[in-house]
This record gives sequence, structure tokens and C-alpha cells, in this order.
Amino acid sequence: MFDKIVPRSEDYAKWYTQVIRQAEMADYAPVRGCMVVRPYGFALWENVKEQLDSRFKASGHQNAAFPLFIPMSFIEKEAEHVEGFKPELAIVTHGGGKKLEEPLVVRPTSETIIGYMYSQWIQSYRDLPVLINQWANVVRWEMRPRLFLRTMEFFWQEGHTAHSTHAEAEEETLRILDIYTDFAVNEAAIPVIPGRKSDSEKFPGALTSYTIEAMMGDKRGLQAGTSHDLGQNFAKAFDIQYLDANQKQQHCWTTSWGVSTRMIGAIIMAHGDDQGLVLPPRLAPTQLVIVPITPKNREDDKQAVMDAVAKICETLEGVRYHVDDRHDYSPGWRFNEWELKGVPLRIEIGPRDLAKNQVVLARRDIPGRDGKSFVSSGNVANEVNQMLDTIQADMLKRATAFRDANTFEPTSYEAFQEVVEEGFARARWCGNETCEDKVREDTQATIRCIPIEQPDGDGNCIVCSAAAEEIAIFARAY
Amino acid sequence: MFDKIVPRSEDYAKWYTQVIRQAEMADYAPVRGCMVVRPYGFALWENVKEQLDSRFKASGHQNAAFPLFIPMSFIEKEAEHVEGFKPELAIVTHGGGKKLEEPLVVRPTSETIIGYMYSQWIQSYRDLPVLINQWANVVRWEMRPRLFLRTMEFFWQEGHTAHSTHAEAEEETLRILDIYTDFAVNEAAIPVIPGRKSDSEKFPGALTSYTIEAMMGDKRGLQAGTSHDLGQNFAKAFDIQYLDANQKQQHCWTTSWGVSTRMIGAIIMAHGDDQGLVLPPRLAPTQLVIVPITPKNREDDKQAVMDAVAKICETLEGVRYHVDDRHDYSPGWRFNEWELKGVPLRIEIGPRDLAKNQVVLARRDIPGRDGKSFVSSGNVANEVNQMLDTIQADMLKRATAFRDANTFEPTSYEAFQEVVEEGFARARWCGNETCEDKVREDTQATIRCIPIEQPDGDGNCIVCSAAAEEIAIFARAY
Repeated sequence: MFDKIVPRSEDYAKWYTQVIRQAEMADYAPVRGCMVVRPYGFALWENVKEQLDSRFKASGHQNAAFPLFIPMSFIEKEAEHVEGFKPELAIVTHGGGKKLEEPLVVRPTSETIIGYMYSQWIQSYRDLPVLINQWANVVRWEMRPRLFLRTMEFFWQEGHTAHSTHAEAEEETLRILDIYTDFAVNEAAIPVIPGRKSDSEKFPGALTSYTIEAMMGDKRGLQAGTSHDLGQNFAKAFDIQYLDANQKQQHCWTTSWGVSTRMIGAIIMAHGDDQGLVLPPRLAPTQLVIVPITPKNREDDKQAVMDAVAKICETLEGVRYHVDDRHDYSPGWRFNEWELKGVPLRIEIGPRDLAKNQVVLARRDIPGRDGKSFVSSGNVANEVNQMLDTIQADMLKRATAFRDANTFEPTSYEAFQEVVEEGFARARWCGNETCEDKVREDTQATIRCIPIEQPDGDGNCIVCSAAAEEIAIFARAY
Repeated sequence: MFDKIVPRSEDYAKWYTQVIRQAEMADYAPVRGCMVVRPYGFALWENVKEQLDSRFKASGHQNAAFPLFIPMSFIEKEAEHVEGFKPELAIVTHGGGKKLEEPLVVRPTSETIIGYMYSQWIQSYRDLPVLINQWANVVRWEMRPRLFLRTMEFFWQEGHTAHSTHAEAEEETLRILDIYTDFAVNEAAIPVIPGRKSDSEKFPGALTSYTIEAMMGDKRGLQAGTSHDLGQNFAKAFDIQYLDANQKQQHCWTTSWGVSTRMIGAIIMAHGDDQGLVLPPRLAPTQLVIVPITPKNREDDKQAVMDAVAKICETLEGVRYHVDDRHDYSPGWRFNEWELKGVPLRIEIGPRDLAKNQVVLARRDIPGRDGKSFVSSGNVANEVNQMLDTIQADMLKRATAFRDANTFEPTSYEAFQEVVEEGFARARWCGNETCEDKVREDTQATIRCIPIEQPDGDGNCIVCSAAAEEIAIFARAY
């Protein structure tokens, strides 16, 4: 039923697609570039959503829904915005059997339409801040689609807020960056680096873009979420004004921020191994699979095993578990399937275990014998909960160690060019776009971010040797 | 701040739109026919979603996400389907700066694209049943848009299942009808009538469509959810086949079913009154608002009141509450706002109540003095929970009594024509489309459904007097 998955070392891109399709996470749709998120992938996305959503709500944000269609003229109101998005637009020209007077854009992002609505809703400083998020689908034409990473339609949340001062908007932008970082580190077990984008990489129309950057299993970088300080650019383009306490009209300061189904791609690539997915327990749709091993033609043994399984299930608390009682399939076949699907923990239980009053606990993150332990039947629930915590913590440690082992601090441009092929290069940058461009041309690497946390002191640009205040992370990226 | 809302008796349609906009449930978008669901409306929709979603999951369904865009050729594969939907399509002709070879349809519903995916995924009887739902936006061109009831883009869930036998598919269709009925009655407090659609009203491409039909405050009918037995129509159009246990290729039997943001319109119209919304406690975003009444310039009193409020909040359990401490606004102004927003229960507490160790509990569903009671401060949490249950039950009773009082059983066609203007007419129908058409022409009323529950015995068609086995519900409808 399963084809052999190519090892990551042989063909990482192929491994990625095979894992996704064989684990039934997602599939390509008949429309080029579009994706179907299958139930298993969607269950993971639902857990991502729930974790992010509860953080947004706890920090005072509310959800809403804005329209899919945006008048073409709206997109054209902010100069950088239209330049950035125009090549990627899908355009509705006909509706209800007629040609439309003004073509409609299928939203690639919603700053413009939401900006327009905010201009209608916001009158006074008392109406501020407005803190709204939406979970939505967006469309960006995509020439080289890849499941979860770059698809023509993708799913995301986009937060859009309006404030009375720039300081407040900046604070919001960074508050969200903290939420994204906390989510990535503590739920997805991905040690992201929060930082600022260089001007050439920022969102079209933003003053400053912030990002969380992650390292994938092939040592390339991936932008896993962004938070933008939009200044007054959209407020001016869409006339979002409020009457301040002194009865003076002021333009608002706005922000926008998003995490998309790309996060699923990040989880797959940060943790997956040659057997398939390895999902972090806190987000895994199924945290524990119980595989009863029932010898053929021995109905008594089978019944005894199933009784023991039922007893264990009764004791489990707060665990998302599944009993795989497909007795027609061999234990090995079933183990493979759940390993492919990345279920963090497996219980194996057969007649021999029953006799010893024990079960086998097998960790997905440590394949083979090393990840197996025997647990007394009476203590399964406890051990399962502890083990899930341990796996979660170990996955983060492992991903952090991997990233750190593949992060280099070259001291010459020559060394830089070498190491940037092999992972993240931390190096000083003068802030000049010419140096950034040279790196891109020489190595295909880009500035992933200028980390929020900077070392003391100063030094010289890795490219031009001019004085450079800040360290940047350079890498080849998705 | 609030404009006066027109009484329902004067202009029901205007009342409806005014309530929605002033309660900040939703707004029209700049694109004609499109809607913005504002945070308060969306919070209600989130509660609707949660209730339905947990029922779907408990009955074995999983969520997934299928693409927004469907190739035009797909829509054309099922003859009735294309006939029904073609006039309503929005069409993407350009993408990524180029004219597309095949235009893409923005999904009006997803039978075709999901049918195609199922044909790829389903091979054997072991793969069946497939029980998938998606929460999605869909687009149907709309000439006479009305918020929540008919908008060009709307939000819904659409379930799509595939089975190995017709009996199983029928069972699924009716299982979902039961879930919809249970949700409407027990969560939305709307006494819907589950029944079958006549052939002329069924879903384009279905064998049989089932529906839940509700009566609105103006005595018109509203279809609040549908469940379709699609037979093998889509399985044949999209080649959804499986190998049965005898190694024979068979076509699947499929179903589809949906509830949309229209349900929000139903809740507004089934319960609202001249003061605004009246939301059922089980779905209300805010179930209880606490309004501290703090006299100006008496800081001590204010502190004492706020302390008492804090104490009450500590005791509340499992209640979605909000403290409206906008002391700048008069109590009356605040009461009006929360009445407009339909919050089921209000606590008023001021210095005089403190002195008597009591609070005022005011029910939204019974305006004025009759809905007010005094509750001892120590017992607030208990009383609140009980009162919310009582309000929920009373709202259902009231809506049921209203529907029953406006449901008639005319015995002549003359009487029928009169009463069908005034509510639901229960009358026998021979099953002939000619009679159905005549009713539509004479009265603008349509067959809302042929109820599942039928009286014993038989009789004659209300229109043509031929033998008629079944009773139908006729009404003018949204």
C-alpha cells in the first residue's frame, strides 16, 4: 500500500512531497497550483489554529470575516502594495452571466479591503484600538507550486489592527511577533529566530516587517510568520482617520500579521525523518496509537488483549489516542503506517506483554529499540503523559541543536560564501542593499532576518567591510 | 449614537437591516452583494460552528479543505447541476498576468471538485464510507442581496460523503437532517420542521433533498439547512468507483449537506423584537452583561459597587459575561445597547442594591418590568445559570407557539389562498408539479417541505382534489 519513501539525503524535495501524499496530509488539486488539505493534514491545521486563536483572543483580538473579492481600484491605491502583488493576482471578469464593469481581484491579502472598512467604522479615538483577525483563504498566482509552502490558494490568519499612535502600533507588531515565537517554540517545537526583515524583503506597503525564521531539515531557512508595522501608509491610502481627544482629525497607525498553512510545511521539514512525519505531541492530531497484537486463530488471546486495551483507554486522560484494531493487517504494517503519519507515541500490546503485565511504549522521535521501553500496565496513563512531555521537549532540543550545529559565524566573505551553502550564516551587514544584492547573486542566499537579539559591540560588514552595527542571518530559503 | 429602529410591524425588511447594522453584526462591503461579518456577528457564527462541528465529529466526520477554484468543465459534467448553477457563477479568466486557457469557476458549492478528488482516493470498499466536511466560503452571483440571507459570498459548512450502498447514503442524509434539527431546536431555539423538498425545489443534481424549515417573525418561511441524497449522479459524472468485496467495480452513492451564515439571519428573524436582537443563551457571544450603576462624583459608592461586581464575577461559572464599566455612559444608554445586541441576561447593580444586598436580574426576552427580578447577592451565580436555561427554554416555547398560532389547515383552495398569506398552510398535495405551479402563481407561496412526520389516513389535494397521500407545508419564503 505504501511506496518506499526516498531518503532525505538523496532527494529532499521528493521526500517532502512523498511524505505528505503518503501520510495523506494533502494532495494536488486538478487546478494547477491548488491544494487539497486532507483530513489528517487539516486536523493538524485545526490544532495550529486553536493554539494561535486562543492566544489572539487572550490578547484582546476578535475574529471577523471580510470579503473574498476586492475591487481592482483598491489594490492600486497603495503604490508599493500594487507593485508587489499585481503579478500574482487572480481576476474575476465575469459574474452572473455578464462581464463586470470593474474586474474583481480575488484577495491576495486584505489590507486594502479592511482598510476601506476601517475608514467607515472608525470615527473617534474612542473607537481605537481596533484589533481584528480573520481566518481565510487567499490566492496568489504561483508558478512553482509546492504543497503547503507555495500554493495558489492557501489558508491563513491575517490580523489587522488600527491604533492612535505609532508607538502603540509598534508595540502590537512586536506583541504578535512574541505570540508567533511562543507558538513556534512551545507548540511546534521549532526554535525560530525572531527578527526584522531588510527593506528589500519587507511586505509591500509596510514600514517595517518582522518575521520568525526557522531552519528546515535540509538546513535551508523558512519564513514561518510575519508581523508588519504599516505606519500610516494604508491609513493614508484609505483615509482611516479619527478625531482625537482635542477634536483634531488624525490618521491611524495600522499593523497586519499572518501565519499560514506554510507552518504545516515547516513542521514537516523541521522534524520529519526518513520514516516519514514526526509530529510534536502538542499539535499532533493523534498523540498516541495503541496497536493490539493479536495472533491469528487464537480468539481467547485476542479477547484478552482487547480487554487489556479497553482498560488502558479508560485510564487515559487528556490524550488524543486511537486504537488500531485492524487485525487483518500485520503489526509491522500498522507500525509503519503510524510512523509514516508521525504519531508521537505508540503502545504495543500482545499476549506476551499481558503475561508480564506490561506494555511496550515506542517513541516516534527515537526510532528502533532505543525509543522503546516497557511500562507496567497499571502505570500506563501516567507514563504516556510524561512521555509526551518528554518527546515535546526533546524535539525542541534536537531541532535547536541541529540549527546551532549548522549556524556559522564566518569572518571573511570567502568563508561566508562557503558556509552559507551549509546552513545559517550569522554575519554583520552594513545595511546597504548593494551588499545584500551581491550576496544574493554570489550565493542565492538572502537575509532571513536581523535578529531582535543582537550581540554587544560593533564590527564590519561581511561583504564590504564598512562599519556595521547589526548582525544578520543569511541563508538560502524556501 | 443609535438611530431609532423602525418597528417590525411597519417595515420588517428595514427593521432587519437596521438591527444587523446597529448591533454591528455585519455590514455591506464595497463590492455589491458582498458582506463583512463584524466581530459580534462572527462570534455568534463561531458558536454556531462549534456546536455543529462537534456534532459532525461525534458522528464520525472529519474536516478538510478543498480548492476555491473549479475548472469550468467540471461544473458542466452533471446536467442538472450546471443548469442550476451556471447563471450564478463568478468566473476567473485571468491569473498571474495572463489569460487562462480554461476559465476557473469560484466554487458555488463543491460536489464537482470533491467528486473528482473522491474518484482519485476511493479504490476499494475498504475505503468507504468517506465522511468529510469543510467550512468554507462560496460564491453565487446575487441580484437582490440581503445580509446573511442572500449574499454573493457566504460562509457555510458543506459535508460530502460517499457510501457503498444507497441505503447507507440515505441513512447518512437523514442522520444529518437529525443533527440539523437538533441544533436548530436545542441551540438556536428555532422549532424547525424537517421534511423533504418537492422535486422542483430540490438541489440541482440530487435524487432527494431534505430540509429544515423555520418560521420567521413576519410569518414567512426560511430554509435553514439542507441534506441531499445525490444517488449515483455525481459518482457517475465523476467516476467515483470502488471494487466491492466480490472484486466487482461499483459506483458509489454520495450525499451532500450544508448549513450557512443564513442561520444567523434565521436566529435574528425568529427571535428579534422591536428593541433589537434577542439571542438564545446557548449561542449568544455574551450571555450576561453586568452594568454597574455608579452615581457621578461619589467615588466611595463607585468603589463599593465595583467591588461587589468583582465579587460576583468570581462566583460565575461557565458563563460568557461582560462587565460594562463605561461610567461615562448613562445606565439607560448602556441598557439600550445591550438590548439592541440581544444579550440574554443583564445584571444591574447600584448603591441602593448594595444596601439591600441584592442585584437586579433583567431578562432580554421579556422586556420591561415583567422580566426583572431581585436576587440576593450571595445567590447570583446559581440564579444566572438557571435563568439562562429558563430563557433558552422559553424562547423555544415562544417561537413554537408563534409558529403554531400561524399555521393553518385550510380545507378549501379558497381558504388556502387566504391563510397562506398569513403563515404556514398545511395541506394535502397530490405530488403533481402543475398544482405546485398554480399555487406559486396564485399566491407566491411555495412548498417549503413535505414533513417527515405525516398524519395517518389520506385525503385530497388542496388544489386539484385528486387523491393525495401527503401533507405539505406551503408558505411564502425567503
